[in-house]
Amino acid sequence: MADQPTRGLADVVAASTALSDVDGQAGRLFYRGYDIHDIAGRTSFEECAHLLQRGALPDRAELDTFAAELADARSIGATAELLIPHVAQSGTPMEALRTLVSALSVDDVDAADGSTEGTRRKALRLVAQTPVLIAKYQAVRTGRSLPDPDPMLGVAGNFLLQITGNPPSERSAQILDECLVLHADHTMNASTFAARVCAATLSDIHSAVVAAIGTLRGPLHGGANEAVMRMLQEIEASGADVGDDVRSRLGRGEKIMGFGHRVYKVEDPRATHLRAMSRELADTTGKRSAYEMSRAMELVVLEEKGLYPNVDFFAASVYHQLGIPIDLFTPVFAISRMSGWTSHVLEQQLDNRLIRPDSEYIGERDQKWVPIEER
Amino acid sequence: MADQPTRGLADVVAASTALSDVDGQAGRLFYRGYDIHDIAGRTSFEECAHLLQRGALPDRAELDTFAAELADARSIGATAELLIPHVAQSGTPMEALRTLVSALSVDDVDAADGSTEGTRRKALRLVAQTPVLIAKYQAVRTGRSLPDPDPMLGVAGNFLLQITGNPPSERSAQILDECLVLHADHTMNASTFAARVCAATLSDIHSAVVAAIGTLRGPLHGGANEAVMRMLQEIEASGADVGDDVRSRLGRGEKIMGFGHRVYKVEDPRATHLRAMSRELADTTGKRSAYEMSRAMELVVLEEKGLYPNVDFFAASVYHQLGIPIDLFTPVFAISRMSGWTSHVLEQQLDNRLIRPDSEYIGERDQKWVPIEER
Repeated sequence: MADQPTRGLADVVAASTALSDVDGQAGRLFYRGYDIHDIAGRTSFEECAHLLQRGALPDRAELDTFAAELADARSIGATAELLIPHVAQSGTPMEALRTLVSALSVDDVDAADGSTEGTRRKALRLVAQTPVLIAKYQAVRTGRSLPDPDPMLGVAGNFLLQITGNPPSERSAQILDECLVLHADHTMNASTFAARVCAATLSDIHSAVVAAIGTLRGPLHGGANEAVMRMLQEIEASGADVGDDVRSRLGRGEKIMGFGHRVYKVEDPRATHLRAMSRELADTTGKRSAYEMSRAMELVVLEEKGLYPNVDFFAASVYHQLGIPIDLFTPVFAISRMSGWTSHVLEQQLDNRLIRPDSEYIGERDQKWVPIEER
Repeated sequence: MADQPTRGLADVVAASTALSDVDGQAGRLFYRGYDIHDIAGRTSFEECAHLLQRGALPDRAELDTFAAELADARSIGATAELLIPHVAQSGTPMEALRTLVSALSVDDVDAADGSTEGTRRKALRLVAQTPVLIAKYQAVRTGRSLPDPDPMLGVAGNFLLQITGNPPSERSAQILDECLVLHADHTMNASTFAARVCAATLSDIHSAVVAAIGTLRGPLHGGANEAVMRMLQEIEASGADVGDDVRSRLGRGEKIMGFGHRVYKVEDPRATHLRAMSRELADTTGKRSAYEMSRAMELVVLEEKGLYPNVDFFAASVYHQLGIPIDLFTPVFAISRMSGWTSHVLEQQLDNRLIRPDSEYIGERDQKWVPIEER
């Protein structure tokens, strides 16, 4: 094979963005110039979505308006409602979410409006509707009725209320809220890039975020958080020592999910916050195994492979301790990242150029066509 | 803005492929080493899909097996059947196709099987099911019943039968078949690239082709064939001289859809075949206006802008003369390109690396966080 320096497009600049910036050497992440360490835990997901979609952190009046618009936009439309019982019958939640979000456009009043204003309205609706789709899906497949949203709760609190059926503690809602902030945007990750490739043909925002959902699903991207939790449960069920188990996995050449990152060469700053929340939940509930196992695992992987946990690693034990079913971990990632995806689509539209790379041909050449009878 | 040589990824090699190759300077296109001029008109769409998905042109026995498998795989499953009346109520056919193809996975027996063999079976089914989805959608929205497929006809002939309600002439079926061959694959076009970005996270083939459908929809990609036909009809309705009209559009800085290409610097070899088919249909039916207007337009655009027609330009007048409704032009492109997309997903899986580019940050820096009351 010929020299292929851009395989996987590592380090190739594919687009310009004012949404987020990563310093992989220093382990820093910024949303529109705000350090994630300044935002996490002090800024709600609604404020963060406003920052990304609208360009600035809202003042009180702007936030109240934005939150009210989000609350008003929770209706998912007849087509998605009709579909939920069917997609809940078989397949995974991420497959269901892909089809459901695609179906939202059928009933979106702005479906045919590709203007910046129309796209901005759809962007807000998509952020509001995604958690509702997942909550309704979860209610249907577990045979529960869906609690009405609580107007005193935000996106995170209402999601916990609706998927567990119980009002969340104030701190649980805060923790999920911080998780949503931490996952909201991350430069040209694969799903965001897929959304921009789609949007750059001047396709619509539903098409772009559906492309992103399908891309997030992969185990090398958002699917990793579920893989982490399944691995923790597998090790716990086996009764093995975590360190021994991880070393033997590494010895067999297995990839340990939740470690390493294309961009970060030091600790992912999101992991710092997620680790702290995982520990806090362990301390609060007294159920320490998910946190303790995660902590043991990260030390072994760092020692053996020099790899740091990424955003997916401690997210797994946090979501688990919040009572979120494992196969909804990646959908929770999607709830958050919807704010980033939609903002990238808006940004791409404002200064668009078709994203159309080249490829290197590695196949047969000069094949001579012959009629089928002579093959 | 900083120097940005890779904006739009023009000329950046993003992946290796053995599926197709373009020589943009010489105006040549190859599928697995076969010159498109050798294949077009002598190789059926089924043979072409076999070449792409399975690696070689089939002999008679292989083709018979492959065609029988395609015919057996036409069932679209209960979820897509349920959805068709709803997606036919509002929105565009490409929106509908995106949601319907996404819904196919619910009822696909191999949905959870990501192995090469499982993905290959799904790839075949997707090629078989896509024209059926569009034909059923068209039958529902026009209130017609759907004719049963004719076992003597292939994919192209059955599609014409089912969307028009009448058995196509032998030559009409051959012409659509040749169109499907011409559109089957084209290196790293935007929709194929979106499919590979998705597949490279090790997501599933339905997610990847759904990303591709949403991307093809854009007017800078597959949507261009519809835009061409609407422009021809607009000019015809206005009674204006084609040359005058095109010159005045160019004078106003309007982009004329269907011209120019990121890769071809001379005539797109597919346009050569499509022009010939457009002329043949004009000669046969005596209804010459779509062809004559297209011909006049291409001469003016070449003279004024030095741009050649691309694959979308003469496809418009061909599809129109075959009786295909304008808003199904891009779905017809999708029927064909499904063979290429699925083959690219299989190829990506066999030698995978995450596609995760970098971005250039162009926004504000060092923003100071302040509490909401102080904003």
